[in-house]
Amino acid sequence: MPSPALAQDLRALLGPQGFLEAHPQRLSYESDALGLVAQVPEWVLLPSDTQQAAECMRLLAREGVCVVPRGAGTGLSGGATPVAGGVSVVTTRMRKILDIDPVNRLARVQAGVVNVELSRAAARHGLFYAPDPSSQMACTLGGNVAENSGGPHGFKYGQTSRHVRGLVWVDARGEIIDQSDARLDPVGLDVLGLWIGSEGMLGLVTEVVLDLLPSPEVSESMLAIFGSLQAACEAVTELIASGLQPSAIEILDKLTIDAVEASVFAAGYPKDAEAVMLMDLDGSPAEVRELGEQLETILKAHGSRELRRATDPEQRRRLWAGRKGAYGAMGRLAPDLYVADVVAPRTRLAEIVALSTAICAELGLPCANVFHAGDGNLHPNISYDRRDADQVRRVLLAGQRIMAACVERGGTLTGEHGVGLEKRDAMCMVFRDEDLAVQERVRQALDPGRRMNPGKMLPVRGCREMRTRSPYLPGMKEYDA
Amino acid sequence: MPSPALAQDLRALLGPQGFLEAHPQRLSYESDALGLVAQVPEWVLLPSDTQQAAECMRLLAREGVCVVPRGAGTGLSGGATPVAGGVSVVTTRMRKILDIDPVNRLARVQAGVVNVELSRAAARHGLFYAPDPSSQMACTLGGNVAENSGGPHGFKYGQTSRHVRGLVWVDARGEIIDQSDARLDPVGLDVLGLWIGSEGMLGLVTEVVLDLLPSPEVSESMLAIFGSLQAACEAVTELIASGLQPSAIEILDKLTIDAVEASVFAAGYPKDAEAVMLMDLDGSPAEVRELGEQLETILKAHGSRELRRATDPEQRRRLWAGRKGAYGAMGRLAPDLYVADVVAPRTRLAEIVALSTAICAELGLPCANVFHAGDGNLHPNISYDRRDADQVRRVLLAGQRIMAACVERGGTLTGEHGVGLEKRDAMCMVFRDEDLAVQERVRQALDPGRRMNPGKMLPVRGCREMRTRSPYLPGMKEYDA
Repeated sequence: MPSPALAQDLRALLGPQGFLEAHPQRLSYESDALGLVAQVPEWVLLPSDTQQAAECMRLLAREGVCVVPRGAGTGLSGGATPVAGGVSVVTTRMRKILDIDPVNRLARVQAGVVNVELSRAAARHGLFYAPDPSSQMACTLGGNVAENSGGPHGFKYGQTSRHVRGLVWVDARGEIIDQSDARLDPVGLDVLGLWIGSEGMLGLVTEVVLDLLPSPEVSESMLAIFGSLQAACEAVTELIASGLQPSAIEILDKLTIDAVEASVFAAGYPKDAEAVMLMDLDGSPAEVRELGEQLETILKAHGSRELRRATDPEQRRRLWAGRKGAYGAMGRLAPDLYVADVVAPRTRLAEIVALSTAICAELGLPCANVFHAGDGNLHPNISYDRRDADQVRRVLLAGQRIMAACVERGGTLTGEHGVGLEKRDAMCMVFRDEDLAVQERVRQALDPGRRMNPGKMLPVRGCREMRTRSPYLPGMKEYDA
Repeated sequence: MPSPALAQDLRALLGPQGFLEAHPQRLSYESDALGLVAQVPEWVLLPSDTQQAAECMRLLAREGVCVVPRGAGTGLSGGATPVAGGVSVVTTRMRKILDIDPVNRLARVQAGVVNVELSRAAARHGLFYAPDPSSQMACTLGGNVAENSGGPHGFKYGQTSRHVRGLVWVDARGEIIDQSDARLDPVGLDVLGLWIGSEGMLGLVTEVVLDLLPSPEVSESMLAIFGSLQAACEAVTELIASGLQPSAIEILDKLTIDAVEASVFAAGYPKDAEAVMLMDLDGSPAEVRELGEQLETILKAHGSRELRRATDPEQRRRLWAGRKGAYGAMGRLAPDLYVADVVAPRTRLAEIVALSTAICAELGLPCANVFHAGDGNLHPNISYDRRDADQVRRVLLAGQRIMAACVERGGTLTGEHGVGLEKRDAMCMVFRDEDLAVQERVRQALDPGRRMNPGKMLPVRGCREMRTRSPYLPGMKEYDA
């Protein structure tokens, strides 16, 4: 427990809005959106800029307090859950868009700016910010950097790492590292690249410089309706093999369609469809026309029984409403939602979706699938009630089994939600001890005391030991770093 | 000097073809293509695979010998020059293409495979490897990874870092780090990304897994002839601002055209042109047609007096012959060539090209410009004779002044040749001591003894000290790590 003297210094630095001590105030910081594990942080600190964040970190370093960086808390792998104790340092008061430079197509923002706010500001210059996680209405850009977030349009535009040009971050000692000069991006050792996706284990990000892209001349959405999920997946495999590049390819399965159509997010998807595929096409008029024709040919050849196309923004919004509202709609099924996040080889999409559903069925759990089909990034979604300990146990088990099934078939652990707490021990499924040790050495170079977000991403024990104890299913019990 | 016992062990391990001791054999490893600085390595080791490379490194670690990794030695920043002594470990005997997987569009190669050989092998599957440095006929893919190499087509396809999916490398202790499972690319701390562009300072790469791309349906080349270099640069600025994306945009200036047309690489460029701009267009037939029309409009509006277009491979080869042969052609002007490598903001191309030429003129040096205009990546080329110490001094001075001029105007030190020896001290122009210290901490996490390629990339002394001594022009005297 940190000392009263430290509390006093932090209180003086941050004021009552920036330093939360009362239990009810701290309670909403007990977990991120993973929800399966929770622990209330000792304090919650909300600095308002880089200098104040650095001063916080210097004060915390004085007593060796552990730090859990946090944006909006929308993460799905437990990355912002303070399982090893310590304090949460939250970026949500740092929400200024500092600069938009339309000539060089760069934006400089504080880390707590919400993803969608940047897109809105950029639109005034005919530009957009490409990564669009499903949580884009709430999630922060700093959190996106820490998790290397994706989104539906990652298929064409890549994940966050493709768009970050600079960072300012504060290390565990409170030193400010300024890597925000975009022109230096490729010069010297790529510590910037290392930082992206480091899940809060190297420091706290306070400012981000991001690439903006010119808004496409033409954007069109296309909805393809299928009588079989298998057929929809096969269509994706073929259209990728053909080298076609819509900007998004999303699939929603039957259970998701039912949930959406019964909710306020109803998008007019036919209730007897087994799957719908939603695509965006963008580019010049000629490109979009040509791509549309090629897509139609493949989709029809794979049995799509109906195609709807929309160019009008309001019509497009409506086609997407079901996808954007899918997680909300699943709230109808049970109070809590576990969103798995695995990557399947794109040739084995249908097989792994079916397998995930079977794994859940065997454990008596419902499984709805919404996924970034173009990336092979599957999201089996399991609705459950966290107050039921046995359900929680089964959800965790399902998550582990889905990961193992994916890895066995040539896929991997995570597509865009990060490793965090949930997949920390599963790292042993895919890395050798020697390769994890290299990650640990790099981590300790930047945080020798291992006080930044302890207990996340890197297995606490060597994998050899874990494998002998409980192969591939160690549970989530040991949270100390 | 390493011990005779070590020599004996290495000789036994590598055989006479893999362990070069005689001075004449070692002589050609005294520098890379920078040439301004040279030092003969104590020994040259040429392991034939990962295991043998690891065994070499373990033996060298026993006596704390410094290691300079080297591919084909085509680097232009002195990265492979053994300035701090030690041995060179060369990858050129590791030249097997281990696997081409056309379904997942991945290639696995040994580090010593020559860039162009991969493209040739991939072509049989309708695929290509995008990065194409000017040295692609000789340079190795391992060297490309270490330097994060670019090339003309980097404008559309990005540099090497965009295409690397996995690596196997050996650290200074001789431990094999296997990060070659492409599906793990985004999982955990991004040590793979850190490694790319690390210029041999983190270890020796032995295998590389690379993305291949589908060969475009249509490829076309376009040559635009200008009566003024200024006008050509302005055309580039506008076509980039318009969001057009040819796959390459190269400019050759008058002095380069003269050298090319007087050589065996003569490409039929008009001798009275002040600049030629060479572009590649690729994509679907409709895309290429549309792009061609848009380019023509802009090029003509900026005064291009003649446009030549070629779709036939032989005609295209001929248009490119001058660009590909430009460095060879400059061999006519003087025995040695210094190829500067700086990045200018794309709005200030013409200004910085003119400034580079003026800087050289003031120092009595010829300056020919060939550059990746689309990336703002300038290559002022200075022909000189290294046997003339005063010329060497002036060439170094010109290089430093060109970098400083570029940085002052919002550009940066290097576009694709790396920092190496040449730009090591110039890092102080663009980084603070604190930011360089972070790079140094990461370096030492992976090489605590600082035995990998010492004296490169990171300034040996703190920048504060160097700035007081000789701001921006420390020369290249201190090579110890």
